[in-house]
Amino acid sequence: MLYLRYLKSDTNEIRYGWLEGTSIGAVTGDIFGNAQREGIVAELRDVKVLPPVMPSKIIAVSHNHLSRLTERGLEKPDIPLISLKPPSAIIGHRDEIILPPQSSQVEHEAELAVIIGRRAKWVSVEDALKFVWGYTCANDVTARDIQQRDAQLTRGKGFDTFCPLGPWVSTDVDAADVVITCSVNGQVRQMASTRELIFSVPQLIAFITSVMTLEQGDVILTGTSAGVGVLNSGDNVDIEIEGIGTLSNVVISAA
Amino acid sequence: MLYLRYLKSDTNEIRYGWLEGTSIGAVTGDIFGNAQREGIVAELRDVKVLPPVMPSKIIAVSHNHLSRLTERGLEKPDIPLISLKPPSAIIGHRDEIILPPQSSQVEHEAELAVIIGRRAKWVSVEDALKFVWGYTCANDVTARDIQQRDAQLTRGKGFDTFCPLGPWVSTDVDAADVVITCSVNGQVRQMASTRELIFSVPQLIAFITSVMTLEQGDVILTGTSAGVGVLNSGDNVDIEIEGIGTLSNVVISAA
Repeated sequence: MLYLRYLKSDTNEIRYGWLEGTSIGAVTGDIFGNAQREGIVAELRDVKVLPPVMPSKIIAVSHNHLSRLTERGLEKPDIPLISLKPPSAIIGHRDEIILPPQSSQVEHEAELAVIIGRRAKWVSVEDALKFVWGYTCANDVTARDIQQRDAQLTRGKGFDTFCPLGPWVSTDVDAADVVITCSVNGQVRQMASTRELIFSVPQLIAFITSVMTLEQGDVILTGTSAGVGVLNSGDNVDIEIEGIGTLSNVVISAA
Repeated sequence: MLYLRYLKSDTNEIRYGWLEGTSIGAVTGDIFGNAQREGIVAELRDVKVLPPVMPSKIIAVSHNHLSRLTERGLEKPDIPLISLKPPSAIIGHRDEIILPPQSSQVEHEAELAVIIGRRAKWVSVEDALKFVWGYTCANDVTARDIQQRDAQLTRGKGFDTFCPLGPWVSTDVDAADVVITCSVNGQVRQMASTRELIFSVPQLIAFITSVMTLEQGDVILTGTSAGVGVLNSGDNVDIEIEGIGTLSNVVISAA
């Protein structure tokens, strides 16, 4: 099932709905676990699609795709390398990625995002998927020059608008084998399967929850593949994941 | 004025109050900007003191105290080095710091915490203090062995319970010159003034808001001084800042 969070512009209400083609149905009950699908209430063209969640934290995993390690000449890590992106970085489908004046090398990183469905701490690999609500597309936008200057990942990955998420959530994806494609102005830059992730989604959840409690709505960005590249003002970035949809954002320069 | 957030155990309500000696007064209006003090409603001994805020993000600044740089033989940085701690790490006054099994070197870092009063983006050094609600004590607990292993700060600083905050907030502190003391089992381990901060509170706010929007309640940990050391199970850690109070936590091992 596909679920989206949206703004009804006529009433200014924020709602969750289910998506069938271009029609949106109402949802009652707990969206994270016991959602009831009701009748069609709106059409996609008439609403503003919002980021599917507003998490308490976003955990970004680096060096987790075989093709990206090969491209950078890196060894396979023994354990996942994690950093945090601030919630203030989140934007939704069709929102603008703003290039900050401090960087001259802002890059896209197409990734599968995992959305946590209920509180999780010290979860085993075997149980991990029970704590997942669903999956969406993410762009782990990174100011590469700043990342390299700081050595720490936080600032380079933490600018406002550097975490496009969406357009909506699929609860039925097999995270072990989906293809993620990133196109810039219609040209494919990244295309890879999650089969090549060094640490699988269940392994990531087990590792992260051995450190910190994950809350309902928290997001894990599972790592990008080869082919990351620079974004320029005016670029259109499309991140497509089979079974989910396409997250589209335009890049602009800071005013 | 001192403000605290507390749980009334008889009614299970969470409230803000103002503190006078050991008496708590009621507060009406907006706690972050337009709080009205009403009459005494409780005594400190009868309530559970809670972390003063539940922020959307916690920004930790490293290498920001002259004494700590000297101790570690580091050069003065050109710009602040920032990382994020997850909100799941927050605990309050008298809550327990839990030593995770993954680390054998968990250390205290006594710091002045800045609490943001209203949304801030691209704030100038001159205007920065207008965006501050107040100040509290913080312990930027860090698993040093894990920090060194990862090179990234996130995991070593991100374990549950690694961000004691409190006990309450002072809105009247001169952040440019307060003494912060950290005692473990009654023995002083750290004692230093914020006069020795490399980047002042206004400079930190200007720098951070040039990257990310700060929200009401967000927290900046301004950096620790010389004297950090290992915490063992059973230790009592007291972090005292003049004009605020003393944040006390007991250290235990994970079950």
